[in-house]
Amino acid sequence: MLKQYLLTPGPTPIPPQVALKEALPIIHHRTDEFSAIYKDISEDLKYIFQTKNNIYTVACSGTGVMEMAVVNLLSPNDEILVASCGNFGDRWIKISQAYGVKIVSISVEWGKTVDPLQVQKALKENTNIKAVFTTLVETSTGVVNDIKSIGKIVSATNAIFAVDAISGLVGQEFKTDLWKADVVICTSQKGFMLAPGLAFITLSDKAWKLVESSKIPKFYFDIKKYKNLTNATPFTPPVTLIVSLQEAIKLIKEKRIENIWNDCRVLAKAARAGMQALGLKLFAEVPCDVLTSAIVPENIGEKIVKTLRKKYGVSIAGGHGDWKDKIVRFSHMGYICKADLLVGFSCLEMVLSELGLSIEKGKSVAAVEEELLKD
Amino acid sequence: MLKQYLLTPGPTPIPPQVALKEALPIIHHRTDEFSAIYKDISEDLKYIFQTKNNIYTVACSGTGVMEMAVVNLLSPNDEILVASCGNFGDRWIKISQAYGVKIVSISVEWGKTVDPLQVQKALKENTNIKAVFTTLVETSTGVVNDIKSIGKIVSATNAIFAVDAISGLVGQEFKTDLWKADVVICTSQKGFMLAPGLAFITLSDKAWKLVESSKIPKFYFDIKKYKNLTNATPFTPPVTLIVSLQEAIKLIKEKRIENIWNDCRVLAKAARAGMQALGLKLFAEVPCDVLTSAIVPENIGEKIVKTLRKKYGVSIAGGHGDWKDKIVRFSHMGYICKADLLVGFSCLEMVLSELGLSIEKGKSVAAVEEELLKD
Repeated sequence: MLKQYLLTPGPTPIPPQVALKEALPIIHHRTDEFSAIYKDISEDLKYIFQTKNNIYTVACSGTGVMEMAVVNLLSPNDEILVASCGNFGDRWIKISQAYGVKIVSISVEWGKTVDPLQVQKALKENTNIKAVFTTLVETSTGVVNDIKSIGKIVSATNAIFAVDAISGLVGQEFKTDLWKADVVICTSQKGFMLAPGLAFITLSDKAWKLVESSKIPKFYFDIKKYKNLTNATPFTPPVTLIVSLQEAIKLIKEKRIENIWNDCRVLAKAARAGMQALGLKLFAEVPCDVLTSAIVPENIGEKIVKTLRKKYGVSIAGGHGDWKDKIVRFSHMGYICKADLLVGFSCLEMVLSELGLSIEKGKSVAAVEEELLKD
Repeated sequence: MLKQYLLTPGPTPIPPQVALKEALPIIHHRTDEFSAIYKDISEDLKYIFQTKNNIYTVACSGTGVMEMAVVNLLSPNDEILVASCGNFGDRWIKISQAYGVKIVSISVEWGKTVDPLQVQKALKENTNIKAVFTTLVETSTGVVNDIKSIGKIVSATNAIFAVDAISGLVGQEFKTDLWKADVVICTSQKGFMLAPGLAFITLSDKAWKLVESSKIPKFYFDIKKYKNLTNATPFTPPVTLIVSLQEAIKLIKEKRIENIWNDCRVLAKAARAGMQALGLKLFAEVPCDVLTSAIVPENIGEKIVKTLRKKYGVSIAGGHGDWKDKIVRFSHMGYICKADLLVGFSCLEMVLSELGLSIEKGKSVAAVEEELLKD
């Protein structure tokens, strides 16, 4: 009977009309009916990614589709540049290491953002770099990177530019073609308001050239198997998830992507005001629009997360790695509205109060309200 | 308004109570609630696989989990034996080829079954073979292989025995440990009565030893990342599919696996009688219990499949490869009951009649009924 509020950065809440599509009688994936749906979502994904290139849908998690980018673009001993500012940036490094790729890395302190000029410097110093990998929104810290500026820099070289847009896409403004991102990957369980299980990847012509020379062995993730299929997948797809994706995309299209970006901006501004009203320091140097992270005192991060969930049904996230107990992360991407944010902050006030912090009740809620009313 | 009857060998129909679980509000995968579900299904999967070893759940299609077996067991230039009798047996070859593995293959004519003595002979002639790969039920032909006898032969050697049980498991009698299968893989969309998107893999101690020496690079499919996790997955799992899997497993456990094997045997016997009453020759030399394949005259396989779906909402499958237009395949695994079989055969009678074949109406239905009544 405890009503649940999922304010975590993936999975995010699924709108009921989308969730119900998952429960419809399953259809076969080698039929005209499914092909029409697949063709439809593949076209609409181009709009959401803001690209003219094809988007391929794969059955795997985010890590799977990151690996798909690595194994299709590179060969062993190729040199790459990874610009990482957190846990998921580091994953590009771990995956590439598993395939014997040589890595030049820019490792930014957690909470800070990648400096485009550092990318430029690294590319000048290492002229053999085949690809630059980075992250749009670093979920572990709540930072957004300046993809537009990095894209401009990388596009002036022979290297291709690969962006993990898993946490950012849909909620955070992002323009694949305009910002010169050659490879973009995403998954279903964040801005898409869907269950996990689907992943997406798109490649520019410049990236496809690299695919041709790639010598890393692969089969399931071999993007050439997907390339010429516009109304089918090479292997059995997660049919029910794709059917529900069509419904989620319908909602996104009706609302228009620019309006979703704007809504997230409003929620993010309000969430930051709320955190500051609680006396909590924001963790992200350049905060993204889809989640808000703040430093909590006395290492009570995990305690806050557990108490919120247990007593009020409100799920937020704690920190990763060294920041495990020291920050909280509050998501506002996908199917999260103004009222949810107010629930989150009022319950957070109660929990902080219960945990002995001197909190002025209602103060963060007032700050959130004030920002929301400006919209 | 056209009611749909899905008699295809994957996806198979999903029971409404299982499908509805997919539509429940999504829960977070790093919570006690999800861990309890994951632990629960992992234990119950052991019962379904008939093994004492752990089962790992992965987000991918069947091909993905086949690749997971290959890349974790082998190193480039290792020698393996593939005993293939159809399209999915051949997939073991294609995946292994992509990783530079040396392949000795036993290729059986489609419709025939793998001869265990041929496996024995090949193992004697090729003493360096590290692993033998085969298929429980070859979906493309409807044949079941004698896994028990092959397992006995392979277990007497140093090679490990890997079985693709995707189409067979749950419906077709199968005993991982007793039959000495070292690696068994399966997916969610066949006997498990679930949507596609989940895959399963289990390994014996003998197989784990091979994993230790494997030199094929991998990351997402690296089974060591899954090994010591009994209540979580290393990467974000398809939460809604796992929640619905718990419900499907509940149904399987309530019915008991031996009773499901028996039900499939009864349906298979009835389906074969039905095909023969229509004057159609059975395609499988040793037919499995989960699907029935029959040769259709005058290359009208695709026409039958399309007409059945369009006019009566009944989906069956045609042939693969060279047999594309020459056979039909009628599934009776998972959530398919006696009444569905009768719908299938009566509509098939009408379609064959419409397509100009001289069919005695009611004859195949009578034959099916007669077999069903013996149960």
